Amino acid sequence: MDSGNLEKPTKTLPMMGPQAPPDLPSIRRSLANKIETKGVPTAVVYCEGNFGQVDGKTANGLVRHSQAYRILSVIDSRLEGRDTGQVLDNVSNDIPIVEDLEAAVTREAHIPDNLIYGMAPSTGKMSPADREVVLDAIALGMNIVSGLHEYLGDDPEIRAAADASNVTIRDIRKPRPSKDMRLFDGSVSEVKAIRIAVLGTDCAIGKRTTATVLAKALNARGIKTVLVGTGQTGLMQGAKYGIAMDAVPPQFCCGELERVIVAASHGDEPDVILIEGQGALSHPAFCTSAFILRGSQPQGVILQHAPRRAHRCDFPAFTMPDPTSEIALIESFADTRVVGLTINHEAMTNAEVGVAIETYSHDLGIPVTDALSRPDTHLTDMVLAAFPQLRTAPLVAAE
Amino acid sequence: MDSGNLEKPTKTLPMMGPQAPPDLPSIRRSLANKIETKGVPTAVVYCEGNFGQVDGKTANGLVRHSQAYRILSVIDSRLEGRDTGQVLDNVSNDIPIVEDLEAAVTREAHIPDNLIYGMAPSTGKMSPADREVVLDAIALGMNIVSGLHEYLGDDPEIRAAADASNVTIRDIRKPRPSKDMRLFDGSVSEVKAIRIAVLGTDCAIGKRTTATVLAKALNARGIKTVLVGTGQTGLMQGAKYGIAMDAVPPQFCCGELERVIVAASHGDEPDVILIEGQGALSHPAFCTSAFILRGSQPQGVILQHAPRRAHRCDFPAFTMPDPTSEIALIESFADTRVVGLTINHEAMTNAEVGVAIETYSHDLGIPVTDALSRPDTHLTDMVLAAFPQLRTAPLVAAE
Repeated sequence: MDSGNLEKPTKTLPMMGPQAPPDLPSIRRSLANKIETKGVPTAVVYCEGNFGQVDGKTANGLVRHSQAYRILSVIDSRLEGRDTGQVLDNVSNDIPIVEDLEAAVTREAHIPDNLIYGMAPSTGKMSPADREVVLDAIALGMNIVSGLHEYLGDDPEIRAAADASNVTIRDIRKPRPSKDMRLFDGSVSEVKAIRIAVLGTDCAIGKRTTATVLAKALNARGIKTVLVGTGQTGLMQGAKYGIAMDAVPPQFCCGELERVIVAASHGDEPDVILIEGQGALSHPAFCTSAFILRGSQPQGVILQHAPRRAHRCDFPAFTMPDPTSEIALIESFADTRVVGLTINHEAMTNAEVGVAIETYSHDLGIPVTDALSRPDTHLTDMVLAAFPQLRTAPLVAAE
Repeated sequence: MDSGNLEKPTKTLPMMGPQAPPDLPSIRRSLANKIETKGVPTAVVYCEGNFGQVDGKTANGLVRHSQAYRILSVIDSRLEGRDTGQVLDNVSNDIPIVEDLEAAVTREAHIPDNLIYGMAPSTGKMSPADREVVLDAIALGMNIVSGLHEYLGDDPEIRAAADASNVTIRDIRKPRPSKDMRLFDGSVSEVKAIRIAVLGTDCAIGKRTTATVLAKALNARGIKTVLVGTGQTGLMQGAKYGIAMDAVPPQFCCGELERVIVAASHGDEPDVILIEGQGALSHPAFCTSAFILRGSQPQGVILQHAPRRAHRCDFPAFTMPDPTSEIALIESFADTRVVGLTINHEAMTNAEVGVAIETYSHDLGIPVTDALSRPDTHLTDMVLAAFPQLRTAPLVAAE
């Protein structure tokens, strides 16, 4: 997707990335960031040339939410000196953007623990310039965290450098050894929790963000909910249950997702399990959601859509599907139903979001909301309308 | 699938495996085997306990057709002394079944060049007893060929043994390094050849066999046809164009298949490209055909079905779909049409096949045939009826 324009139109909602997080007062977000990462390792996120854009979605996700690492700064020379929260969402979060690795390190009292490769290029590959930064970080004694398809731990030069500097390389996407992976066996159908997959009409359209908001809101209402991550960003953020589906051999995709869902069921005994989708079932290049539907056997699906997106992200030649065709595709592919539509408001004014909600909800006959610009009760009501049995769960006051 | 009964019912067609090959006089088949493998490396196929059964499909395929290796014998102690052609198809092919590796080696004048691991267990894994046989073969100086998901070349013990004995390990399923894989870019839509995917209602149901018969028959009619393999058996048999889809990371599945199809188009300029399907689009565990449909963008689909199969192969709890629902699923999932149904006649009499052809063809309104027990002109006519523009290709006499 071409989202290189850094000036946001004055009339559109404050956001640059695929999705903005809920509005929170600056002080509270900053504090939340500090509390949720107390005692965890520190990290600098490398996102040169891509912060706030679609291919920088890993960095965008990490500065918004990170349980596994405390994010100190983001490297992107284009945006040096700005605040990542301001750039993304017009709300400061005290995580600055710095020019390069040297600047990131010299501003800290100690060498940061990790360098996170914070880009998710659709090619899954690293540029020669990126390689130099990774080698520099290793030389400084920083551990490397990467979500690339190209496993840095298998790269002879990087491996040798890491061994020499006694640092670790965490390849988030690297699946378990084949011999430890398992096939689908249908045990997911015995899971007691209601399973809802959050799919979308495209890549990088806000599926994980909507699922995160929904999980939080359902838990706040006393409906115990676990989010199962299926992509590298969620895993880097510290998701308790998850698997990087895009790197698992197809033979094991359904089985490995089933394993994680069954583990979440046994481990946490939730009322609801949300499953993060990947790509789009209709996508010509990325239809991993086929495995997600087969492996999770969801009773319901929530579909995320960006009404203003002109073409598939990163594929100017591929037009976007409309929600009607995507819903028909999902419901014919799997024995499930789409229980609601959620809007990604990129390039839309607040009024336009209102019109879209009204129109889609009339045309599709299902509830429609925007997880970020509308009250989260609209989202929980969507789930309760589809699964009224959840109403019997004990109600607690929203946080 | 439970196909452990070695006695074939007297009234059913002669076959044991998922599919039998076309009837050929014994002498001609034996000769054909010798001619097509002249000068190529020799191989013993290891298939202990599984020859003629579904999980022995790699061995079954190799004794029927092999361009890359000359098959000397098959190891399966249960069937020692029998002829593999007789066991599979009631027609001798001069490839004997032997008790163990020692017997396979001592009957030859020279140590065979290769040991092929000829089983495709749904788990993709090797047993401890299998490991001993592989290590013994390495000690004898034989190269190893494997289609397992567990890459033998990455196994420390096997790797060390192979290095010590100076033999090679060919892991058929091992994909190219991630950094060399490519994403789908839509270039497949510019391929001039008509693309037909041969899908099925289950795994190990004869998709590759039907595609092989069809490719041969179209070529014999002067319609230049290339078969693109997508599984390990076809690659072991020596397919010129192919990729083991089940081992490619989902992010690259559509793109890597597209790459191979574009390469076949440029390399051979065929009129028709047939694409081997995998699993079934409806399969709860194996729906790689989703990527095959997206990556090949076929104008037509031929669907292979076994009317007598009671449940999904290897999954007793999962019922088989009927062709009507599978066709609806395929046509709603992709912008294509199912142009014909082909029958796998397992556990059927010839008369029952006739009734099935009549009934399905009436109910579905498309041509129906059995690639093996019916003349191959029925199969080519199916394609010509769907794509009459192919009739303009020059006609040559059938071989």
